[in-house]
Amino acid sequence: MTTAKSNRPKARLPRGFADGDPVETAATRQMTERIRAVFDLYGFEPVETPMIEYTDALGKFLPDQDRPNEGVFSFQDDDEQWLSLRYDLTAPLARLVAEKFDQLPKPYRSYRFGWVFRNEKPGPGRFRQFMQFDADTVGSASTAADAECCMMAADTMEKLGIPRGSYVVKVWNRKLLDGTMDSANVPPQQRLSALRAIDKLDRLGIKAVQQLLGSGRRDDSGDVTSGAGLSEEANNFITSVVSQIDFDLFVKKDQFFEAKIQQFEEGKRKPFDIDAFRRNVILYLNGRNMSAVLEDGLREIVEISKLITAAGYSDRIKIDPSVVRGLEYYTGPVYEVELTFETTGEGGRPVRFGSVGGGGRYDGLVARFRGEAVPATGFSIGVSRLMAALIHLGKIDAVPQPGPVVVTVFDRDRIADYQRMATVLRDAGIRAELYLGTGRMGPQLKYADKRRAPCVVIQGGDEKAKGEVQIKDLIEGAKASAAIASNQEWRAARPAQFSVAEDRLVEAVRDVLARHEVTWRS
Amino acid sequence: MTTAKSNRPKARLPRGFADGDPVETAATRQMTERIRAVFDLYGFEPVETPMIEYTDALGKFLPDQDRPNEGVFSFQDDDEQWLSLRYDLTAPLARLVAEKFDQLPKPYRSYRFGWVFRNEKPGPGRFRQFMQFDADTVGSASTAADAECCMMAADTMEKLGIPRGSYVVKVWNRKLLDGTMDSANVPPQQRLSALRAIDKLDRLGIKAVQQLLGSGRRDDSGDVTSGAGLSEEANNFITSVVSQIDFDLFVKKDQFFEAKIQQFEEGKRKPFDIDAFRRNVILYLNGRNMSAVLEDGLREIVEISKLITAAGYSDRIKIDPSVVRGLEYYTGPVYEVELTFETTGEGGRPVRFGSVGGGGRYDGLVARFRGEAVPATGFSIGVSRLMAALIHLGKIDAVPQPGPVVVTVFDRDRIADYQRMATVLRDAGIRAELYLGTGRMGPQLKYADKRRAPCVVIQGGDEKAKGEVQIKDLIEGAKASAAIASNQEWRAARPAQFSVAEDRLVEAVRDVLARHEVTWRS
Repeated sequence: MTTAKSNRPKARLPRGFADGDPVETAATRQMTERIRAVFDLYGFEPVETPMIEYTDALGKFLPDQDRPNEGVFSFQDDDEQWLSLRYDLTAPLARLVAEKFDQLPKPYRSYRFGWVFRNEKPGPGRFRQFMQFDADTVGSASTAADAECCMMAADTMEKLGIPRGSYVVKVWNRKLLDGTMDSANVPPQQRLSALRAIDKLDRLGIKAVQQLLGSGRRDDSGDVTSGAGLSEEANNFITSVVSQIDFDLFVKKDQFFEAKIQQFEEGKRKPFDIDAFRRNVILYLNGRNMSAVLEDGLREIVEISKLITAAGYSDRIKIDPSVVRGLEYYTGPVYEVELTFETTGEGGRPVRFGSVGGGGRYDGLVARFRGEAVPATGFSIGVSRLMAALIHLGKIDAVPQPGPVVVTVFDRDRIADYQRMATVLRDAGIRAELYLGTGRMGPQLKYADKRRAPCVVIQGGDEKAKGEVQIKDLIEGAKASAAIASNQEWRAARPAQFSVAEDRLVEAVRDVLARHEVTWRS
Repeated sequence: MTTAKSNRPKARLPRGFADGDPVETAATRQMTERIRAVFDLYGFEPVETPMIEYTDALGKFLPDQDRPNEGVFSFQDDDEQWLSLRYDLTAPLARLVAEKFDQLPKPYRSYRFGWVFRNEKPGPGRFRQFMQFDADTVGSASTAADAECCMMAADTMEKLGIPRGSYVVKVWNRKLLDGTMDSANVPPQQRLSALRAIDKLDRLGIKAVQQLLGSGRRDDSGDVTSGAGLSEEANNFITSVVSQIDFDLFVKKDQFFEAKIQQFEEGKRKPFDIDAFRRNVILYLNGRNMSAVLEDGLREIVEISKLITAAGYSDRIKIDPSVVRGLEYYTGPVYEVELTFETTGEGGRPVRFGSVGGGGRYDGLVARFRGEAVPATGFSIGVSRLMAALIHLGKIDAVPQPGPVVVTVFDRDRIADYQRMATVLRDAGIRAELYLGTGRMGPQLKYADKRRAPCVVIQGGDEKAKGEVQIKDLIEGAKASAAIASNQEWRAARPAQFSVAEDRLVEAVRDVLARHEVTWRS
């Protein structure tokens, strides 16, 4: 059975993949159950799709991917057709809806969670397999559907115990982003770079965005990022729109402008003001007409704003022109769920927790298959990132479960008796196991400790003769041992160890569990 | 947004993959929760591994795969290393244990469930992505660990509501299979075919197995399966061992033998008898010594048998020499969970439900990485197959959830008001949604029906003026409409529709839900 070392495979995972430990696995389950309850309450129903799809059915919508198939794990089937692992839960949903269109209720409201895969360079907290939890309404062009997604995202944050004021759902509209670009005559090949630049507004600030929209930027470390190459006027216009600072101030660049920028960077931002937005656009257009796309986007954002206010969510859902969302398939309202509290970043510097989910309208995804437009909107929660936040806030149990009661094996020939004791405990609903290793009592107690067992059961020959079992309370024992000075003293005292009649085993173990309030989550 | 038909991708899944509908998704969750409770109670803890592993780390252990990498989805990483989707949950566990050996408690008891992938020809009920639920004890060579797996499998069946007598856990030992082959001098290249032949004992009967162990078999349709090519004596010996019919009867092949075969095929099989087994072997060996492997296997099966009897499981766990288990990595005890009740097969013929899980000891899997042997045993439940059985038995909810209460949109300008009503209902814990489509009242009611909504809420101008809402009880309405003859009669009666003051909305909806005992599982 042994293998020469040179022929042995190395036990390791490919980079960007990780095992999930018991605490993570349990915490994820706890969290997804709470999310599910919110989505159920809103009338969505669970529907799942497989991990593998035809590559052409998924399409190419990943952000920051210039080469075809970049970012996706793909391989050929026996019949040479290309298959891919899903990179999100939206593209497979579009395939499902297109395939089963006639059977489904319209609108079609569904949710799902599961693993998605990105064939990208992994980094800290950035994996090639991660979990998303999505909800989507397909077949509704109504802004009420978009508003509902934002409300449901906010309700989810509440249900998870994130305090109001510690999160915000930001809404904007791709039509306003695109319309702004149209107005500024940004050619198609510069738009992706421009969007990426805008996306950095929160993190890097206005001046950095202006550099990235223009000729490029050199950061503190000396690294240079090339810019989108926009004209100064277009650059000023776009930055004025996303920052909500008046366009004419960008043109003048006077002291007042510097003060405004300062305020913005310090987080003192104006709430979205549709009149100010219009004024900026009109000023820039200088007599030209506002485009239909811009008008549409403005109408939609006003509708959403009204619905949100009417429903009492305006304190948690904010219109914010800096929301970009990376995926290419969005066509209308886009939204982002952001945690606004700070945590400690690299080098002890305070950083915002940031985005834990988002989504938007993708009216073209089902149309890819069907030809006719099928409007749709939905959002996705980044499960791992959100869980990190919940653990940080202490809103989820991130401590290991208590271990099982361990029935030790004192006399190897009597293993059937010990096994029966474990069965008796389990039949009484007590988490219990028989020690299955080869160690003597020392290693058995160490094992029980490592498993966080609340107590162990021991029956040697003496106890057997008396019809008794010994119960060793490991929680009490740990406390006592901290107070006892020497091994001799320990052996003399044998703290937290006692005998009971064998037929009182369940009762005695229950007493120990009750004393320490041991319960197992399930 | 519309695409010319010729350029459009077709909305379809690769063969062998399927979407999971709400009923399946909910039933799976219900079932996995119950299994989890049993595994928790036995002291196992949840640990997960990713879907993707290095191909060499998974190894090649699939049954019926002669070519390397056959049966596994594989692809190259950026650095040209081969990656594979996991084909079971055991090989990744072995990798995890080898990788984290020093940190883990020994024995290491863990469970996990999730999707696995087989790149095989799909068929009815046979998918290329399916779910398994596994539990394993790594680091224990004790037969008590194997016995425990069998007991836990039996407890799981009970917990899922499968009546005692409708399932059996069958145990055998690879050492006894291998030892039998050794004794019969079956050369290595014939063993896989021989194992496959034995595996068909239950389905095809003794004579078919003898043909398959010998020169081959032509079935009723005329298809020929080539045989393992064993000598008649070896063939008789192996068949006598697996059928527990005396070896000398196989040699004589008299009337008494035919009667025994008849009894066997009718299901009247003898309980395993170790003395009869020994007698058969001794008779065949004719003075030669029994091999150490056979002796080992016999000792283990006797130990397991004793443990099972002592624990009171001998009515549900049976020693059965026909258990093979396909995977190549098994090294000792193997076990199979079988449902023994009948269901209707193709052409209305009664068939046994058959295997829903199984497992065994795989002492070599961790050793592949570490060199030193790390004994391990565990089992796997085929989630989809078992779920089909539970649905068949009516032991799991396989009906769709009631839909949400649907708040209709009578007057499109008042959508914010309607949305608020949905919010009020949800705040009261009632599953509710706003209708988000573009249809008028007719389509809205049809939508509510399709969603299985218990009732809908309507507020037209008249109701609004009176400060009222209409509630239409769709469950009562469906009953009434069955009893009403004409459309006129219907309109006159308007059964199950009533008005309430707007501030009594929650109360009135609750009354409707209570009347029909509508509850939502969550």
